[in-house]
Amino acid sequence: MAKKFFSEKNLKFTLYDVHKVENLLVHEKFSDYNKESFDMILDTAKTIGVNFMYPLFSEMDKNAPEYTGTSIKVNPAVRQYLNMSGEGGWINAMFPAEHGGQQMPLSIFNACMFIFASANYSLSVYPGLTTGAAGLIYNYGTEALKKEFAEQMVTGKWQGTMALTEPEAGSSLSDVKTSAEPSAHGYYLIKGQKTFISAGDHDNADNIIHLMLARIKGAPAGVKGLSLFVVPKYRITDSGSLEFNDVNCAGCYHKMGYRGAPIAQLSMGESDDCHGYLLGEQNLGLTYMFRMMNEARINVGLGATAISSAAYYAALEYTNERLQGRKIDEKNPSNPQIPIIEHADIKRMLLQQRAIFEGSLSLMVYAGKLVDLISVTSGEEKERYELLLELLTPIVKTYPSEMGIVSTSQAIQCLGGYGYSSEFPVEQYMRDSRIHPIHEGTTGIQGMDLLGRKVTMKKGVAVKIYLDEIKKSIGEASEFNDLKPFASALADAVSLWKETTNSLLGIAAKGEIDLFMADATLFLEFSGIICIAWQWLLQGIALNKQSGTASPDNKNFSEGKMYTLKYFYQYELPKIQGLAIRLKNADGITLKMMPEYFED
Amino acid sequence: MAKKFFSEKNLKFTLYDVHKVENLLVHEKFSDYNKESFDMILDTAKTIGVNFMYPLFSEMDKNAPEYTGTSIKVNPAVRQYLNMSGEGGWINAMFPAEHGGQQMPLSIFNACMFIFASANYSLSVYPGLTTGAAGLIYNYGTEALKKEFAEQMVTGKWQGTMALTEPEAGSSLSDVKTSAEPSAHGYYLIKGQKTFISAGDHDNADNIIHLMLARIKGAPAGVKGLSLFVVPKYRITDSGSLEFNDVNCAGCYHKMGYRGAPIAQLSMGESDDCHGYLLGEQNLGLTYMFRMMNEARINVGLGATAISSAAYYAALEYTNERLQGRKIDEKNPSNPQIPIIEHADIKRMLLQQRAIFEGSLSLMVYAGKLVDLISVTSGEEKERYELLLELLTPIVKTYPSEMGIVSTSQAIQCLGGYGYSSEFPVEQYMRDSRIHPIHEGTTGIQGMDLLGRKVTMKKGVAVKIYLDEIKKSIGEASEFNDLKPFASALADAVSLWKETTNSLLGIAAKGEIDLFMADATLFLEFSGIICIAWQWLLQGIALNKQSGTASPDNKNFSEGKMYTLKYFYQYELPKIQGLAIRLKNADGITLKMMPEYFED
Repeated sequence: MAKKFFSEKNLKFTLYDVHKVENLLVHEKFSDYNKESFDMILDTAKTIGVNFMYPLFSEMDKNAPEYTGTSIKVNPAVRQYLNMSGEGGWINAMFPAEHGGQQMPLSIFNACMFIFASANYSLSVYPGLTTGAAGLIYNYGTEALKKEFAEQMVTGKWQGTMALTEPEAGSSLSDVKTSAEPSAHGYYLIKGQKTFISAGDHDNADNIIHLMLARIKGAPAGVKGLSLFVVPKYRITDSGSLEFNDVNCAGCYHKMGYRGAPIAQLSMGESDDCHGYLLGEQNLGLTYMFRMMNEARINVGLGATAISSAAYYAALEYTNERLQGRKIDEKNPSNPQIPIIEHADIKRMLLQQRAIFEGSLSLMVYAGKLVDLISVTSGEEKERYELLLELLTPIVKTYPSEMGIVSTSQAIQCLGGYGYSSEFPVEQYMRDSRIHPIHEGTTGIQGMDLLGRKVTMKKGVAVKIYLDEIKKSIGEASEFNDLKPFASALADAVSLWKETTNSLLGIAAKGEIDLFMADATLFLEFSGIICIAWQWLLQGIALNKQSGTASPDNKNFSEGKMYTLKYFYQYELPKIQGLAIRLKNADGITLKMMPEYFED
Repeated sequence: MAKKFFSEKNLKFTLYDVHKVENLLVHEKFSDYNKESFDMILDTAKTIGVNFMYPLFSEMDKNAPEYTGTSIKVNPAVRQYLNMSGEGGWINAMFPAEHGGQQMPLSIFNACMFIFASANYSLSVYPGLTTGAAGLIYNYGTEALKKEFAEQMVTGKWQGTMALTEPEAGSSLSDVKTSAEPSAHGYYLIKGQKTFISAGDHDNADNIIHLMLARIKGAPAGVKGLSLFVVPKYRITDSGSLEFNDVNCAGCYHKMGYRGAPIAQLSMGESDDCHGYLLGEQNLGLTYMFRMMNEARINVGLGATAISSAAYYAALEYTNERLQGRKIDEKNPSNPQIPIIEHADIKRMLLQQRAIFEGSLSLMVYAGKLVDLISVTSGEEKERYELLLELLTPIVKTYPSEMGIVSTSQAIQCLGGYGYSSEFPVEQYMRDSRIHPIHEGTTGIQGMDLLGRKVTMKKGVAVKIYLDEIKKSIGEASEFNDLKPFASALADAVSLWKETTNSLLGIAAKGEIDLFMADATLFLEFSGIICIAWQWLLQGIALNKQSGTASPDNKNFSEGKMYTLKYFYQYELPKIQGLAIRLKNADGITLKMMPEYFED
């Protein structure tokens, strides 16, 4: 195990110097906090990550969850961690006070989640899932549902889940078939199958509470007929005891990575006795789900960023210690070998990893801050933040997820043959990170969301707000000599983005929607690189602002930061050129390629 | 399991239509063969792949080799396969008749290896390793060594290995420490450690014969002091029986993938009783090894290509069967879902996979044909082929290896959540493929080989020969209207390659070797894309030449081929633009970034 899996210094730099999250403190909602309490919270998270979670990282992969025939056996540490999360107030930390929460800013909470996920991603998801499910109950549920379910969930004794996917309804949620039949007793009878449900069943919680999409009998087809239900594994009898609610665990998937968390298959109503409690109004299920989708998607990006961070520090430690080879101009084989971190190609691989995950982390903090600002503003200002968050969410989810594969793969490459062996952690990081382009909406779905909905929504107002923000940063950066070339490169990139986007919108205007959308995934990749270049410029600005007061012991950090910024602009940003060529030359190859042409 | 893991039609198209390997038949060496016998050999390989190897693919991953304390227990099918390979004449198929071989062209042999590796990569490597080791003995060994060792090895009863790497000597072979002390009996006493030795020990062969690099006491430091030894696990006594030769198996690595083949740690001479037999002359060990390195590196590229092929066919089968979503303009959710292969983004992902592995396969066959031509020509003609092969080898090894990660990852993405689960084969393909950028010289080493040695060797003659070949293809392609735009795009790409290469050589001319070499890995990536674009143009030429005679049932194949060619030129080739920008702007970021700047 490597000694380090994240950098406290970089995390605080990103929170305070780049994104100034302490500015949130002026808002009434956050008035119980101050910078010292933020730091204390981060310290506590670090202690949990270092002492409890990280030591379980490899063990939870090697001894993956197993289906017992009725439930899924997971590592006993899961119960400990869930209880610890409940007792520490982590599950409902962000909830408003009237829901029993601590009104913690998401920016700070997510910084803690980053620490947890870099320590042990699989373990970190259990309480996070409960947070999402309990939040829905608090926001849309009756007092009875809050009292009976949400209050137990936030203690960590009960597990929460999001139960959307079915065997025939993955990316296409409009095809959800699980049915809900009203009963005379107020509850609904649920019947159907769910699959790929994270923490959908396990033996380390006393109950599992599913927030489940189902279709009330007679409801319209498609997403407009979906309602959201609270479906517990054990329901509460009138006497207050728990009784089985006919939610049957039918199996669990063995996975490439992310193996510490079970992904369950569920079968509801096999004995026609599965009760579900409607949450909010009928047929608004997907609307409720999507109101928390931005946060769920930030979580995925954050998890991917965290795994890349951990892989980087493992690679950094190894490359500092491993002696191999000599300088290019050293001809004498009797002279001692050097640490491989002195080789340019190793430094290139380390810089790429750092450019990816530190750039991503900055975007994650920015997205979290937008959520915080939305929660404390109103009117036009609030709408501005909402539009920005809506627009950026597909990038927030996807850039770290897709580039996390590249980043963790480079970590393996830094270790050579050892990187491929399970005795070192990096191969697990690559396996773990491969989930992220898949769950909470695949990369393909995100691309369609960005190009097909977000870019065009409200007649492009979101785009205008976003480009104004970037322009402001370019202006600010241009005041520092060090940053001028990067400010100018970003301005060029933004021009290219506008040109390319307009070219695509021209196709849409002609009504050729198929063609307009054909390369949406590449458009997302293209947009993601530019967005991260912006985040790097913001980091450069923060660095230059503090450089007047830089102490000598800050030199390594600031030099390293500047070189990583340069790396991003010299090695990553030029990738937009090839993407722009492709996107502007929309010739519909993938539309004309017929399925049967793949045969033979 | 998918029904198909490679395309016979495409393999034959690549062999016969693109590279015309039947033209080899005019040479005396291959005069025992004809096109019918080539086809029979391919049929036999297919039967072995389909019936024996492919059914073991998943099982050998799930029940990986285990260290028993003295040896490594592998799947009993390994013994069957090794015997089958010996009896079928596969181990020495390419050897000359005077070495008991069948003088099979490497182009055809590698086509079979492609089938085997796409059926079950891990299983395919066991006899391949024996081939390499026995070949060295036949080429450089005494009659006694041939009789005692090589003749047993080619039966498949004894396993051969290449034992180069040591704990302190991976990429830096000049640091090999294993020592060899001459004895009065003609043999040497070997002492030292080897690690990462593929099939370095297992219980499914009666003996393991290592071709081992060691340093004779008193030999010079560095690679100039390395000799090659035959070091058997069991040596042959005067009475002809086998006795333990003090080659101790110290463990085996648990790996991310490629788990059907054991990677052993070895300790020689723990009881000062390990005999080694010098192969050829003292201190020429690395020279001998490198004479077979081109072929070993083609094998890696071929293995990576084969895995990508198998992953593609698994993805193709799934995307044809899986129903999910509807056409973009279909608003009615009551209409049935469509096979996902009808979605543009899925077709894009399938096209990318196909563009990668069919382009790679063409290059693999071309490289094999060069080896064949070298073996039957002499003088200037032979040198021409040798230079071409030398120049291309780093690309042959690296393009399929690096892009194989991308390709297999896209196969996972085509399957969504199912792709991440071990119930489907694609996640294993991605894990298996991750070894290729590491073994037989990492990507970093290949980059330095291409830019630092191959591009400049013989004053650039190899480059000239290579560019002439491409120019010839461009000329030929320009005669077909269909291909004109691609011929012209390739000509532009070659110009950019020359410009970029000259810019780098200018730095070398100033003596700034560090800077010249800093981005060698990117130069390799850049060169690889252009080389595969060339291979796609060659496929386009072959297709256009046969299109006069195309039967209607060939339509799917030829349309698919042409769209994949277009895909490569529209989506992959533009990536060179960003790489060229970077390579031409050699600012030495990775040289100036000090190791300590990575801290904090």
